[in-house]
Amino acid sequence: MEPTTFILFGATGDLAKRKIYPALYNLFIDQKLPESFSLIGLGRREWSDETFQANVEQSLRDFSRRESADTSKIKQFVEAFRYSVLDIGRKEDYQKLLQLVEEREQELNIPQNRLFYLSVGPEFFVPIADNIQSSGLGSTQGWKRLVIEKPFGHDLQSARELNEKLSKAFTEDEVYRIDHYLGKPMVQGLETLRATNPVLQALLKNRYIANVQITANETVGVEERAGYYDHVGALRDMFQNHLLQLLMMTAIQLPHGSNIDQMRLKKKQVIEALEPVRKQDVGLNIIRGQYQAGSIKGAQVPAYTSEPGIAADSTNDTFIAAKLQIDDYFWKGVPFYIRTGKRMMEKSTRIVVEFKDPIAQLGSVKDSSLQPNLLVIEMSPNESITLQLNMNDPHHKGEIKPVNIELHSSQNDLPEAYENLIHDAMNGDATYFAHWDEVELSWEWVQPILEAFEENLIPLYPYAAGSYGPAEVDALLAKDGYHWWFDSKPEQNSETQNNSTTYSMATL
Amino acid sequence: MEPTTFILFGATGDLAKRKIYPALYNLFIDQKLPESFSLIGLGRREWSDETFQANVEQSLRDFSRRESADTSKIKQFVEAFRYSVLDIGRKEDYQKLLQLVEEREQELNIPQNRLFYLSVGPEFFVPIADNIQSSGLGSTQGWKRLVIEKPFGHDLQSARELNEKLSKAFTEDEVYRIDHYLGKPMVQGLETLRATNPVLQALLKNRYIANVQITANETVGVEERAGYYDHVGALRDMFQNHLLQLLMMTAIQLPHGSNIDQMRLKKKQVIEALEPVRKQDVGLNIIRGQYQAGSIKGAQVPAYTSEPGIAADSTNDTFIAAKLQIDDYFWKGVPFYIRTGKRMMEKSTRIVVEFKDPIAQLGSVKDSSLQPNLLVIEMSPNESITLQLNMNDPHHKGEIKPVNIELHSSQNDLPEAYENLIHDAMNGDATYFAHWDEVELSWEWVQPILEAFEENLIPLYPYAAGSYGPAEVDALLAKDGYHWWFDSKPEQNSETQNNSTTYSMATL
Repeated sequence: MEPTTFILFGATGDLAKRKIYPALYNLFIDQKLPESFSLIGLGRREWSDETFQANVEQSLRDFSRRESADTSKIKQFVEAFRYSVLDIGRKEDYQKLLQLVEEREQELNIPQNRLFYLSVGPEFFVPIADNIQSSGLGSTQGWKRLVIEKPFGHDLQSARELNEKLSKAFTEDEVYRIDHYLGKPMVQGLETLRATNPVLQALLKNRYIANVQITANETVGVEERAGYYDHVGALRDMFQNHLLQLLMMTAIQLPHGSNIDQMRLKKKQVIEALEPVRKQDVGLNIIRGQYQAGSIKGAQVPAYTSEPGIAADSTNDTFIAAKLQIDDYFWKGVPFYIRTGKRMMEKSTRIVVEFKDPIAQLGSVKDSSLQPNLLVIEMSPNESITLQLNMNDPHHKGEIKPVNIELHSSQNDLPEAYENLIHDAMNGDATYFAHWDEVELSWEWVQPILEAFEENLIPLYPYAAGSYGPAEVDALLAKDGYHWWFDSKPEQNSETQNNSTTYSMATL
Repeated sequence: MEPTTFILFGATGDLAKRKIYPALYNLFIDQKLPESFSLIGLGRREWSDETFQANVEQSLRDFSRRESADTSKIKQFVEAFRYSVLDIGRKEDYQKLLQLVEEREQELNIPQNRLFYLSVGPEFFVPIADNIQSSGLGSTQGWKRLVIEKPFGHDLQSARELNEKLSKAFTEDEVYRIDHYLGKPMVQGLETLRATNPVLQALLKNRYIANVQITANETVGVEERAGYYDHVGALRDMFQNHLLQLLMMTAIQLPHGSNIDQMRLKKKQVIEALEPVRKQDVGLNIIRGQYQAGSIKGAQVPAYTSEPGIAADSTNDTFIAAKLQIDDYFWKGVPFYIRTGKRMMEKSTRIVVEFKDPIAQLGSVKDSSLQPNLLVIEMSPNESITLQLNMNDPHHKGEIKPVNIELHSSQNDLPEAYENLIHDAMNGDATYFAHWDEVELSWEWVQPILEAFEENLIPLYPYAAGSYGPAEVDALLAKDGYHWWFDSKPEQNSETQNNSTTYSMATL
């Protein structure tokens, strides 16, 4: 890896503490940082290098997944860290920063490879990019890269404006848009598994698949983000970015050894082939909801509109479900059901691919003891990729039983999404970052829904906190003859959920 | 299950001792015999019921797979056994047998359900069937069934004659032709696995399969069967029956819940679609061999023509390999490579389905670290069905490694083929028996090869005992770009054979 100067905006912030420093430290321990590595933290607080380093140390002790952080290792790690006070709007501060960056580059005798990481609010993206440009920080003799967090725009128009402004300072190749769902080990594992196994590749198409279900449920409410969240809602916060990215990653067909351009082309083709929703038709296949008071694991929780910082008459969506169709050769006719919500019964993030039952297709009597084959990519609460097959029950000869075969062996020390992504960005590998085309097309697809919500063209269904969302969400699948897999509602599917055996390879 | 009288011809013979009594006993222990069950053993020896029962007892102690045969259980079991002296050609003996059968039916107060099991040489099939017919034994008020062992004919004409003669006494529905390969748990397991899993069904067709390899290798030589074997050879003894049955079982496409007629129709369609071999073309795709002196696991063994009872100038085939093609919608373009021989390096019976590598198809550079996906049905030395996939190597992040996933969980107490088959015959289920159509079409396909062998139109390749047959057998695959999987030749494929991990479900 090439020597890198990591210039971090928002170095005193929460994301830096919880995710970025632990990720960098883990990369350091795994010898995945460049040999010559320099980090310059930026913030408004008046910290010395020592205070900054002490804060980084503390964050590692609090948030690193390493069981015991090794003191001498940590010392060695933070030696590379410097701090500079920066007011985002003050041009002088960028001059001071440039001076520090160049000093460190000379001191370490490294080329001018500069990675600008913007761990700040979206309103600061453009001023920072402008100042990087005008200060001369961006005129490097090495490479420069811009890593930015979500959200990328608030709707189609604002996203386009943001992109246009950023592109004055950074080319598309230099922009690394983080969607941390793309960094998740199971998402990347699915890609590897499919790319290296022709038999799995063969199966992931409409000929064999009945439907695809993508779920991202949370038990938390709005927490401290009320002011932000009430202007955003589930559609912008989760659906437009993370869930549409998961849809693209499920639907792409790529042989092993494909390069980044091939992957991006395929992702773009998938989202281009998404059947558009017209504003007047949003009610047909989109369901929005807002949580009411309820209980989660025995604890009473208030309604969304009773949360601190939320207006009592807010019509913001805390839940969204949608049925989507991809109109291409591979996927035509396969419904993709997507749902995400806050204050749900349980935390779960997973993709379920339900295969067709050829018997049902032939119209014969269906053997009710047989379960459909499923491919399950679970990201939360556990991380695994499993294939559900029917097999002889070893304890009851002649009987057939669904069995889960773990295809991706889980490890206790799986890298976190941020480790994967930061490593890739330093390596110049943008494979698992969101390209502008994907972002723009996602906003374009979502735009009529945003408008329908704003104009109140469809109902805002209330749902009890601690449920699986409005009842209408089950009906969305039921009218096609399907049901959500792995929901633990006691009154439904109880016999189909709990009688399968998992043979975990991890225990071997 | 209906009450049954099991009338066993050849009750003092070797097959009865080694296979039939232990199988019946195991069914008895598993409560899979009819509640009212009567067995009448027939042989030329002048045995009393007591002597017969004592001999059955001894065979259980010698050959039952049950760890310790329980004395009181054995006593209870053999109480159902009676013996009658019978000279196959003496009509009076059949009258005496009829009298005994009727006596026992009245004594037990059971209907006249009679299963005639012919554990005798093929020359006795017709006289026994005739005598069953003429004696009145076959005129039952219940059902009658005829179970016969191989060989069913010596060539196409003799098989047709035999069938015609048998059909005077028994209808096709009443004839149960044993091919014990069809009784093997892994063959039946494959069928269940495919029928209940749409994803496996989807994969078993030419679109995804590169080739299929069927191997049945033995380390033994002719042993005590020299006189018989020298007139039969590998083609008749193994290929025409067992190996073509395995080919049919691999190639059929059946949904779960198919009935026997559907399965038989599909099997017949497969063998009808086999591309015929013309006598003058036999040399193109058929290789015959005969073993020379050599060593197996360190022990010197003589050449076939030096074996006791074999003529020094015998041109009998002790090895045969063939490339076959099924000209139907599912299999066109997929070569089936079949081989069987005596005095091979190791005992192994298996079917390997090698899947296509889509990368190679696209013409890109092939990643040599990737192994093709394989479906392996192993019947010997172990019993298992595994799928080889490429997965992340848990010990080397980022590396891909072939992993075997055991799809059919092996059990220590798997029923033997004879248990499955005898149980099915008593139950009236002929699914896993060879229908006349299959037998006739197999002989028809094999006939030109038999003739080419007899007329010496193709070479008889010598091969060393302890090898994998003549070198030409590797070339048969090599010219299509393939190789035999799992051969343990040290000079070849060593790195591709031994670096995969098996995750066995049986140990969980």
